[in-house]
Amino acid sequence: MQIDILSLFPEMFNGPLTTSMIGKAQEKGIVNIDVTDFRDYTTNKQHHVDDTPYGGGAGMLLQAQPIFDALDAVQEKHPTPGKVILLDPAGKKFDQNVAIELSNEEHLTFICGHYEGYDERIRTRVTDEISLGDYILTGGELATMVIIDATVRLLPNVLGNQESASGDSFSDGLLEYPQYTRPAEFRGLKVPEVLMSGNHQKIAEWRKRESLRRTFLRRPDLLKNYSLTGQEKQWINEFKLDQEQSKK
Amino acid sequence: MQIDILSLFPEMFNGPLTTSMIGKAQEKGIVNIDVTDFRDYTTNKQHHVDDTPYGGGAGMLLQAQPIFDALDAVQEKHPTPGKVILLDPAGKKFDQNVAIELSNEEHLTFICGHYEGYDERIRTRVTDEISLGDYILTGGELATMVIIDATVRLLPNVLGNQESASGDSFSDGLLEYPQYTRPAEFRGLKVPEVLMSGNHQKIAEWRKRESLRRTFLRRPDLLKNYSLTGQEKQWINEFKLDQEQSKK
Repeated sequence: MQIDILSLFPEMFNGPLTTSMIGKAQEKGIVNIDVTDFRDYTTNKQHHVDDTPYGGGAGMLLQAQPIFDALDAVQEKHPTPGKVILLDPAGKKFDQNVAIELSNEEHLTFICGHYEGYDERIRTRVTDEISLGDYILTGGELATMVIIDATVRLLPNVLGNQESASGDSFSDGLLEYPQYTRPAEFRGLKVPEVLMSGNHQKIAEWRKRESLRRTFLRRPDLLKNYSLTGQEKQWINEFKLDQEQSKK
Repeated sequence: MQIDILSLFPEMFNGPLTTSMIGKAQEKGIVNIDVTDFRDYTTNKQHHVDDTPYGGGAGMLLQAQPIFDALDAVQEKHPTPGKVILLDPAGKKFDQNVAIELSNEEHLTFICGHYEGYDERIRTRVTDEISLGDYILTGGELATMVIIDATVRLLPNVLGNQESASGDSFSDGLLEYPQYTRPAEFRGLKVPEVLMSGNHQKIAEWRKRESLRRTFLRRPDLLKNYSLTGQEKQWINEFKLDQEQSKK
């Protein structure tokens, strides 16, 4: 997969794109990530990339020209256009399904805005507008890194253990069950006995039940798209009973 | 504000925390960010931080001990405990209100998980579990950077222009209106005439209407918490009419 990033702050990507999972995926040749400083594409002598908004108002806007020209250069080098993604609070909300969709592309290009906003005409060059959530960031750089992380880890041979991506929260529609590792007791806190019983059926049952409990308590919305077995319905009734009793 | 980050990949933060807005906020002394590698707190000779899960299963879990001890060290140095935040897909969804809440704290400590997950007992040391959204990341590092960015920009004297944070999308409950900067025509794409009219009342009206239109088309859910004026109700009816006509 080829990933291009257009940004005014290429140095922001130094740590995140060379470390840990993304760094390894690049070393293995599974993904190649190029960061383009679109300031290099300005046609004015001062290398300004922004200007005041028409109609007045505070702040500066990114101009269309440097981004159009930087995109032209990227698309000439990698003729598979793929998806051109603008990070924008008004975009489609990013979630695991969007990550899966993006992981099937050959080429992704991210345009990172910064400052107040950007000239509206930039949207004409974009295939997807994505929002990370209902909050405001200084620029698109961190959002781009998050999307790249969530996407690249889904590519074949990126995660060391093939079970890793399929055992995640959300992958079966429920939140993950509580997990414990050594020691069995730490500062007075003990590991639940069932997990040390060696009884695999009981362990699997406990995990399913705790996964369901956590989902019921914290993200009941996720249960709308989940088909409950008879046993699971009974557990849910028990959780409701627990809840009522804890209120008393 | 003091921010502490516990992570196994301190080098990931190099670019993002020293560049742009966060870098400047640190230079100005508005915020101080320390990254602690909790591998330094392991008590085993091999400096292992993870181990296999009790009860079996794929992947490795972060152990409680190094994180407990790293937290003890941080909290001894900065006795105002503030909030201890765990990044977790099962946590409370991060949004602008959470960012505002966090911006009122004196001390934030972020625990970045990595690998498969972490020992459940770590949650006993945490005041807030936060999720960035319904997607899976390799670790908590990028999520932490996003939360820090959204939070620090709300601190006094961080943004150059005091109007900047208040003019954002969401700050008045609507998405931002389209904006344009020079030139008036670029590759055949023109700036709307009203913005060049110099008529400030008309410009304000156009902006409000387009802000409302974008919200109506892309994020109608935001309108539930927005009180419409009579004029705005009329505009919404016009947008609905436009929608029906474009379907024909």
